Amino acid sequence: MVPVVLTSKLAEHVDQSVTLRGWLYNKRSSGKLHFLELRDGFGVVQCVMSKRDVGEEIFARAHELTQESSLAVTGKVSAHPKREGVFEIHVEDWQLIALTSDAYPISPKEHGTEFLMDHRHLWLRSKRQHAIIRIRHAIIRAVRDFFDDRDFTLVDAPVFTPNACEGTSNLFETDYHGQPAFLTQSGQLYMEAAAAAFGRAYCFGPTFRAEKSKTRRHLSEFWMVEPEIAFANLDEVMDLAEAFTCSIVEQVLATRRPELEILERDIAKLEAIRAPFPRISYTEAVDIIREERAKLAKDSEAPELSWGGDFGAEDETLLSQRFEKPVLVHRYPAAVKAFYMKRDPNDDRLALGVDLIAPEGYGEVIGGGERESDLTVLDAAIAAHELPPEAFGWYRDLRRFGTFPHGGFGLGIERMVAWTCGLPHVRETIPFPRMLNRLHP
Amino acid sequence: MVPVVLTSKLAEHVDQSVTLRGWLYNKRSSGKLHFLELRDGFGVVQCVMSKRDVGEEIFARAHELTQESSLAVTGKVSAHPKREGVFEIHVEDWQLIALTSDAYPISPKEHGTEFLMDHRHLWLRSKRQHAIIRIRHAIIRAVRDFFDDRDFTLVDAPVFTPNACEGTSNLFETDYHGQPAFLTQSGQLYMEAAAAAFGRAYCFGPTFRAEKSKTRRHLSEFWMVEPEIAFANLDEVMDLAEAFTCSIVEQVLATRRPELEILERDIAKLEAIRAPFPRISYTEAVDIIREERAKLAKDSEAPELSWGGDFGAEDETLLSQRFEKPVLVHRYPAAVKAFYMKRDPNDDRLALGVDLIAPEGYGEVIGGGERESDLTVLDAAIAAHELPPEAFGWYRDLRRFGTFPHGGFGLGIERMVAWTCGLPHVRETIPFPRMLNRLHP
Repeated sequence: MVPVVLTSKLAEHVDQSVTLRGWLYNKRSSGKLHFLELRDGFGVVQCVMSKRDVGEEIFARAHELTQESSLAVTGKVSAHPKREGVFEIHVEDWQLIALTSDAYPISPKEHGTEFLMDHRHLWLRSKRQHAIIRIRHAIIRAVRDFFDDRDFTLVDAPVFTPNACEGTSNLFETDYHGQPAFLTQSGQLYMEAAAAAFGRAYCFGPTFRAEKSKTRRHLSEFWMVEPEIAFANLDEVMDLAEAFTCSIVEQVLATRRPELEILERDIAKLEAIRAPFPRISYTEAVDIIREERAKLAKDSEAPELSWGGDFGAEDETLLSQRFEKPVLVHRYPAAVKAFYMKRDPNDDRLALGVDLIAPEGYGEVIGGGERESDLTVLDAAIAAHELPPEAFGWYRDLRRFGTFPHGGFGLGIERMVAWTCGLPHVRETIPFPRMLNRLHP
Repeated sequence: MVPVVLTSKLAEHVDQSVTLRGWLYNKRSSGKLHFLELRDGFGVVQCVMSKRDVGEEIFARAHELTQESSLAVTGKVSAHPKREGVFEIHVEDWQLIALTSDAYPISPKEHGTEFLMDHRHLWLRSKRQHAIIRIRHAIIRAVRDFFDDRDFTLVDAPVFTPNACEGTSNLFETDYHGQPAFLTQSGQLYMEAAAAAFGRAYCFGPTFRAEKSKTRRHLSEFWMVEPEIAFANLDEVMDLAEAFTCSIVEQVLATRRPELEILERDIAKLEAIRAPFPRISYTEAVDIIREERAKLAKDSEAPELSWGGDFGAEDETLLSQRFEKPVLVHRYPAAVKAFYMKRDPNDDRLALGVDLIAPEGYGEVIGGGERESDLTVLDAAIAAHELPPEAFGWYRDLRRFGTFPHGGFGLGIERMVAWTCGLPHVRETIPFPRMLNRLHP
C-alpha cells in the first residue's frame, strides 16, 4: 500500500512512493511535462509529471486541471539536492477528486482589499494569509504556554455582562432572555475575583467594542489575554509584561521562521526583542514626544503636546522610534485612566498604570497596572467617574472580604500578530475580521 | 531575606523560613496555640502559632483574625512525617494585610445553590469550586495540546455572524453598526473553509444558544472546540473523537488527581476510559434503548421508542448504562440531523453523523460526522430544510472551488468537565455561568 501523507512529512519518505491529497495551486506545462504545484494546507510541493513516465492517457487528463481543483497525486519523493526541506514528487499516477469548473476568483493578479475580504473564505488559502494565521496560532500557543507554565489558572471570563459599567456607547447589546446584556469589553474585573481565588489567573477569549472608528488598529471583535496576580505591584506587572512579550517573540522565531520569510518580515528587528525593555514615566514620554514633534514640525506653530492627555497613535509611533525594543510607559495621569487604577502614593495626580508600546510604530499592545484595593478610595473613584455604584456590588465585595494588593494587564492578540508579522493593518491578523463595515463572510 | 513563596512550592523549602501571603481559610485556637489555615490560591497550609514562640503580643493580635482576612505569615516549613506533599508552618511572625470586618457570606454551613451562585465571585475560593475550575483548565490545556500536536491549525471562528441560518429562535441578536448580527452557535461552517486552507483546522471559543430551556445540561454561553479535517471519512472522524476523548481523560488523571479526590470522583470509572470505544449504529442504539425501557416499564402501555427520532436525555442515560466506556452512535436518520450532513451512500435515509455518548448518564459530549461535499445535493438539502439559499453564498463556494470529502466534530467543554468531575449539573463547570435566569455576577 502506498501511504497517504502530508506535504509536511515528506522528509520521512524520501525515495518512496506516496500519495498526497490537496488542491492545484499552480500549473505549468510543456509538451512533455506538467509541473503541478500541489497545496494540501501543510505546504506546497512541486509534482513533476512526464509523459514518458505516466503514458499518454494519464498525461493528457492533466491538461484539464484548473486552479484549486482537488486531486490525489501518487509519486516518488525526491529531496532537493541543495535546499534542505524542499522536496519534489515524480508523478506515477493521479486522480481527480473534483474539477473546479468555475474560474477561481483569486488569481495571481492584484485584487483590491475589499474584494479579497469578501472572499476571505478562499483568500485564507493563499500563501501570505496562510503564513499570518499560522503565526497567529504560534502566538496563541505561546501565550497559553507562558501562563500555564507559571502556575496561572485559566478562569474564563463571561461574554455576557449585566451592566454597562462605563456607558453603553461602545458596547454591543443583546436581549438576554428579556433583560439587556452587554458583550464584554474586558474580563479584568472578573480576573480580580479570580486572583483572590487562585492567586494567579488569566482569561483568554474574544472581546467586543462597538466603536464607530475606522482605523488600522481596531476591530469590533478581537481576542485578548488578561493575567491578574495577587500581591503584585507595578514593578512586578512590568516584569511579567516584559518576560511575556519576549517569550512570545522567541516562540515565533523558533517555530515560524519560514512564515516570517514569506511575509518578508525583517527578522533582525524581532531578534532584538530581549529583556530588559526601557521603562520610562509618562512625563518622560511626553518630553520625548515633544522633542520628536519639534524635529518634524515644519512651522513652529504646531501645538505642543500638553501634559495630562493620553497619547494618540502618531505620538506612540514617534515615541517608539527612539527605541529598538518595546518601551514600558508607566505612571499616567489618573484622569485619563480607568477608575480602578491605583493612585501613585508619591504623586496623587498619577495612576500606577503601564502601557507597553511596540517598536516600529505598532502601538500599544499591552495595557495594565496595579488596581485600587482600598474600598473607600475605590468608592470615591466610582463616584468621581459618575459610574452607577449598584453595578459594582460584587466587585466591591473583593475589597470588603480580604482585600489585597494586585495587578495585571491585557494583551490584544491582533496587535501582537500585526507587529510580529509586520502588517500595517489588523484586518489580516484574524481569520474572519469584524469591522465597522465588515460582518461577512 | 526570607523568601516569599507559594504553598505549592513548600517542598523546595523544608526546614527553611518562608513568607506566605494569602487569606485565612479557617482558624482554631486554644489558650496557647492558634491553628491558622492559610489559603493562597495554590493550596491551603496549616500554620501553627504558639504563644511561647511568638510572644504575647503577636499571639494576641491573631485573636482578631476573621475568615478571609488577608495576611502574610512567616515561619519555618516542616514536612508531614507520613503524608507526602503535606507541610506545616511553624509561625515566627505574621502581618495583617486587611481585616475582613463584615461577616464573610459563605460559611461552612449549607447554603442554597442560588445563594452560592449569587456569590460566585467568592464561592470560587472554596475547595470544591477551586478543584472544578482547575480540572476545567487541565481539560482545556489537553484539548489544545491534542490538536496542536497533531498538525491542526487554530483558526478562530467569528462570534458575530451575519445570517440566522436556521431561524432566529435560539439566537442572540445584536445591532451591529446598524445591521442585525447573531452570536455564533457553532464555528463549523467556518472550519470547513479552514480545512480547505489548512488541511486540519480547529476553533475553540465561546458559543451561544438562547434556548429557553432550563435543564442541567444547558448554558446560554458555553465553550466548544471544533476540529475539521480535509479528506476524512466517518470512520476517521470516529477514530479522532475516540483518541481525543482518551487523551483528555488521561491528562486529567495525570495532573489533577488531588482535585478529583476533593470532588470524591470515582477515579476507577475514569481509568476505564481507553480505546477502543464501542461503535453502534443508530438502529442498534434504538434496539438497546427499547430493551432498557422495557426493563423499566411498570405498565406495558408505555410508548415504544420509534425509529426516526432523536434521543432524549433519558434515552442517552439508558444507553450509556450498557457500557463502561463512551459509546459512538453513528448513522442517524438524516431527517433529525443538520442539512450539511452527508447521506450514507448505502442507505439514503441515514446521515453519516456520529454522537459520542459519555458513560454514567452524562449524555452527548461530542457530535459530528462527514459533511456533504456535492453542491447539487447540498443545494437540495438547503431547499428541503427551507433555509435561505442567499445565506450560504460563501459556504457554497467551498463546493464550487475544489470540493473535497471532509468531516469533523464539536465537543462541549462544560459537558466534558461535568462528566470528568462527576457533576450532575453544568452550572458549576464554568467560572461565571450564564443561564436562563442567571446573568450575574
